[in-house]
Amino acid sequence: MSRAKYLTGDKEGIEEFLARFDTFLFDCDGVLWSGDHMFPGTKETLEMLRAKDKRLVFVTNNSTKSRADYKKKFDKMGIPSDVEEVFGSAYSAAIYVSRILKLPSPKNKVYVLGEAGIETELDSENVPHIGGTDPSLRRDITQADFDGLADGSLLDPDVGVVLSGLDFHVNYLKLAHAFTYLRKGAVFLATNTDSTLPMSHTLFLGAGAIGSPLVTAYGKDPVALGKPSQAMMDAIEGKFKLDRNRTCMVGDRLNTDIQFGIEGGLGGTLLVLTGVTQKEEIMGEDKVVVPSVYVDKLGDLLG
Amino acid sequence: MSRAKYLTGDKEGIEEFLARFDTFLFDCDGVLWSGDHMFPGTKETLEMLRAKDKRLVFVTNNSTKSRADYKKKFDKMGIPSDVEEVFGSAYSAAIYVSRILKLPSPKNKVYVLGEAGIETELDSENVPHIGGTDPSLRRDITQADFDGLADGSLLDPDVGVVLSGLDFHVNYLKLAHAFTYLRKGAVFLATNTDSTLPMSHTLFLGAGAIGSPLVTAYGKDPVALGKPSQAMMDAIEGKFKLDRNRTCMVGDRLNTDIQFGIEGGLGGTLLVLTGVTQKEEIMGEDKVVVPSVYVDKLGDLLG
Repeated sequence: MSRAKYLTGDKEGIEEFLARFDTFLFDCDGVLWSGDHMFPGTKETLEMLRAKDKRLVFVTNNSTKSRADYKKKFDKMGIPSDVEEVFGSAYSAAIYVSRILKLPSPKNKVYVLGEAGIETELDSENVPHIGGTDPSLRRDITQADFDGLADGSLLDPDVGVVLSGLDFHVNYLKLAHAFTYLRKGAVFLATNTDSTLPMSHTLFLGAGAIGSPLVTAYGKDPVALGKPSQAMMDAIEGKFKLDRNRTCMVGDRLNTDIQFGIEGGLGGTLLVLTGVTQKEEIMGEDKVVVPSVYVDKLGDLLG
Repeated sequence: MSRAKYLTGDKEGIEEFLARFDTFLFDCDGVLWSGDHMFPGTKETLEMLRAKDKRLVFVTNNSTKSRADYKKKFDKMGIPSDVEEVFGSAYSAAIYVSRILKLPSPKNKVYVLGEAGIETELDSENVPHIGGTDPSLRRDITQADFDGLADGSLLDPDVGVVLSGLDFHVNYLKLAHAFTYLRKGAVFLATNTDSTLPMSHTLFLGAGAIGSPLVTAYGKDPVALGKPSQAMMDAIEGKFKLDRNRTCMVGDRLNTDIQFGIEGGLGGTLLVLTGVTQKEEIMGEDKVVVPSVYVDKLGDLLG
């Protein structure tokens, strides 16, 4: 595997690279910003790409936000965007349930471990759901819960899917519901399986970590609908009718973003070093996942 | 690997088997009882063994209870016992921190993900600790928490160990604290790594499931102090001065109890089918972990 080309400061190399693509798929957290901190040059870089008539798609594994929520985030950060440019893992999961899984109603109800973003996107695809932000589940588990889950009296017989995403309000009660539905035969889906979440300039626990109690207890992995799952790439291609050869994936993670682009057969991948991946991780001949090019930060594309 | 011998109804086989041992190590949940339901014959079987001058040790991976709590559970179930007969994973972990790890004070503080049982046993070994049942951690995480964990202002500089056990009050805030301490270099311990917990005649999430977000996010496994970790067997042997050849492990799980006994070089292992393991799992020549003998339920040893 050849080494990635370093483009920071290489004006000519940048020009040449950008000219190879019509579409840029962007990871957001760790690429454009970290939490509420925008990286320098982000806005100007996106403007430069738009000025060159590039199509931009913001592909995020963050399942806590709906596409509309994400649009608000762009607005708040002062970055012009359109809600149709946003493609999140919650939306990807909703599409998977409604258009691919297509369980017969009423046995198509989804038990959600996650935040409002998932619920909004399930609603947009008319998929019934329980769990999620239900305030009655934000409490300690009781003996009555253990008994009622064990004898089935607390279970909704229409639940056919457990969808696990990032839940900042995770607790034992919610996990026990999800685990019991899985044991009863529900299909196991995850919006994404990122182990960590870049926030406040450091890392916290990601959706893959929060859902891992279910994986450990149930002993089976979910079907993941976020990067690097090619189910998400197929959905993006279907929606945007893109030419994979002339599409570049931009991200900060080798094992999600860059792998997503490589496995999807895209024309190129660009790694930024403002997120999870450190420079050392792409050096050396023995690396398996290597981006086409890398820069210290996205803004370095301004040359 | 030879097949396990089935002893239910085999009066002669039972007599012969029991005569081979002075000491019986018992798993509790799934063997003596399930939750608050005692299996028929449990009390009489333990009395029969005591009448034959067998020493009984109750070896439990349940970290939510201290040895004293466990004694109360035996009292409540009407089973005579002594607190010194109880050997739990929380006690095992406390001994590991105080007598084996021996970090220099004051950098030996333990951040606990777990219930009061762990705190009680750490106290019994004079190990300082935070987290655990601290009521100020039983709430939603806020942006101030993210920032304070990121910049270190919310961290206790003396924490040198993260100890993960079963926590029915797990939440994102507690996991975020534990994860941040791990990233700062704390030693990663777990009371036990059972993926599931038998309760109310079914399975719920065990300590191994509840701690798995830390394993997933941090990318490293903890040193586990419960079964089947031989650190626990060594501690039991040290305390009870037992002859391993004349000791039998009794349990309901192949991959914790029975493996624990086999790896520990005990004279025998006895599987009961009242818990996790189903009969099919020990049949066939291809099985790796096979008990010496098995019975449908512990009470079958009465003949």
